[in-house]
Amino acid sequence: MAEILKGKPIADGISEQIQQRLAELQTKGVQRVSIAAVQVGEDPATEVYVRNQKKQAEKHGIDHQHHHLPPETTQEQLIAFIGKLNTDPSVTGIILQTPLPKHLNTWAAQCSIAFRKDIEGVHPENLGLLVYNRERLAPCTALAAVRMIQSIGVNTVGAETVIVGRSAIVGKPAALLLLERKLSATVTVCHTGTSKAGKLAEHVGRADILIAAMGSPQAVKGEWIKRGAVVIDVGVNQVGDQMVGDVEFEPAAERAAVITPVPGGVGTVTTRLLLYNAVEAAAWQREN
Amino acid sequence: MAEILKGKPIADGISEQIQQRLAELQTKGVQRVSIAAVQVGEDPATEVYVRNQKKQAEKHGIDHQHHHLPPETTQEQLIAFIGKLNTDPSVTGIILQTPLPKHLNTWAAQCSIAFRKDIEGVHPENLGLLVYNRERLAPCTALAAVRMIQSIGVNTVGAETVIVGRSAIVGKPAALLLLERKLSATVTVCHTGTSKAGKLAEHVGRADILIAAMGSPQAVKGEWIKRGAVVIDVGVNQVGDQMVGDVEFEPAAERAAVITPVPGGVGTVTTRLLLYNAVEAAAWQREN
Repeated sequence: MAEILKGKPIADGISEQIQQRLAELQTKGVQRVSIAAVQVGEDPATEVYVRNQKKQAEKHGIDHQHHHLPPETTQEQLIAFIGKLNTDPSVTGIILQTPLPKHLNTWAAQCSIAFRKDIEGVHPENLGLLVYNRERLAPCTALAAVRMIQSIGVNTVGAETVIVGRSAIVGKPAALLLLERKLSATVTVCHTGTSKAGKLAEHVGRADILIAAMGSPQAVKGEWIKRGAVVIDVGVNQVGDQMVGDVEFEPAAERAAVITPVPGGVGTVTTRLLLYNAVEAAAWQREN
Repeated sequence: MAEILKGKPIADGISEQIQQRLAELQTKGVQRVSIAAVQVGEDPATEVYVRNQKKQAEKHGIDHQHHHLPPETTQEQLIAFIGKLNTDPSVTGIILQTPLPKHLNTWAAQCSIAFRKDIEGVHPENLGLLVYNRERLAPCTALAAVRMIQSIGVNTVGAETVIVGRSAIVGKPAALLLLERKLSATVTVCHTGTSKAGKLAEHVGRADILIAAMGSPQAVKGEWIKRGAVVIDVGVNQVGDQMVGDVEFEPAAERAAVITPVPGGVGTVTTRLLLYNAVEAAAWQREN
């Protein structure tokens, strides 16, 4: 039976890192770290999410402003609003809450965020820095998956690592992070093309480290898992009144050495890393 | 015995594409496409390279200016010079010739190039766009490897594709290009960590498509190659008075279905794609 790798202790470790970095930054004259969360229109789930974000931020000594723009906000108005936040020195981090109303172009709006204030790590420039092994602000979910792997002290050099899912903010950045010299995993990225070719089970079956990030409930079958593998489940899927991951948990836990639960696994670390990125962003803005 | 996949016919096809795109752009009011090549200090190899680049560009109806700055140019002067080219509307593409003299920071200088004029495709923003499947200016060598695979009409969906080498301008961008939806290969990236774990031969041996891009002469042994594989050799290594690739050519050619030669393979396509990118850059600058 696998060890269940919970997110909370890792998130708590990140909180300590945040406190240390904040203290360090204060000695360098950074007066405050502040997040501006931009929401357009009404969405009850977003409301709850931003409220929790604010509570968490303030608990860590990070300012949090919730900017709520009306649903009829135009693209030009949104870009202009973000532009003001970009140049406001009292704002060190910007989050654009999604989904946006359908008449708005999410991609263009996200790209308009100054990349040094992009604490979600979704700006193309920040993703490009991952390609160069020059990580500054990485996408929080990808980073959370990697931090969980690092937390167990497994040797990643040349480890057979399989990522299922090729999204721009989870699968691909996780692959780039794991290819960095300090981790040096051998990384395979699988996706629907792999399934079509009938090869998904085979790749999962040879993974010493598996990251499941396709967003499909329990699509990775427990019997595919290699005995002794480390299984990081990034999936968050609502099935009926239950939250399940991308991995069939029970049978996978029988084979794996370590497995993350859903909920209480990667997600818990992800939200804490948003605050970590907020601090790193403020530090980055201090450099020349 | 493998089919030898030469670069020249593919490069000629790209020349035709360039002519078509240029004609199309003229109807849209783009008067000229022009490359500014910036060289700092003396380097005989760079001189030859830029002279050939100029000849090729002009043959395709693309202007080419060779800016030769003195060896004592400071970082500030170089950045200021690039800054002028960035805002000069008569310049649509910029190439910073490397290596730069040791007192200069190549990375900072390359990042200072306006990304829509970055025809080598090395700016982090352009690499980040690859992560998003929004390729505009991709690194020429990575793009050349992928174009050669596409040229033979092989089905890439779910194809077992192994890339040996994780550089920011070849291995990783080639992986990102092959993961795009239209190609949808299953991609594994191997590197020195894979070798250390004793797994390189195994990964090479399961590759239906292999890209060798580690920059190590004949390091991929012919006997590792899967029978019937497509082998793309990106390596260019001077050994004595001979130019060799990263793959042991003769024994690999006995097993592969298709193999690219060195020289006369990927390199020939790469230099032509620099001109292709020059045209794409000019088109991109016309958009909003």
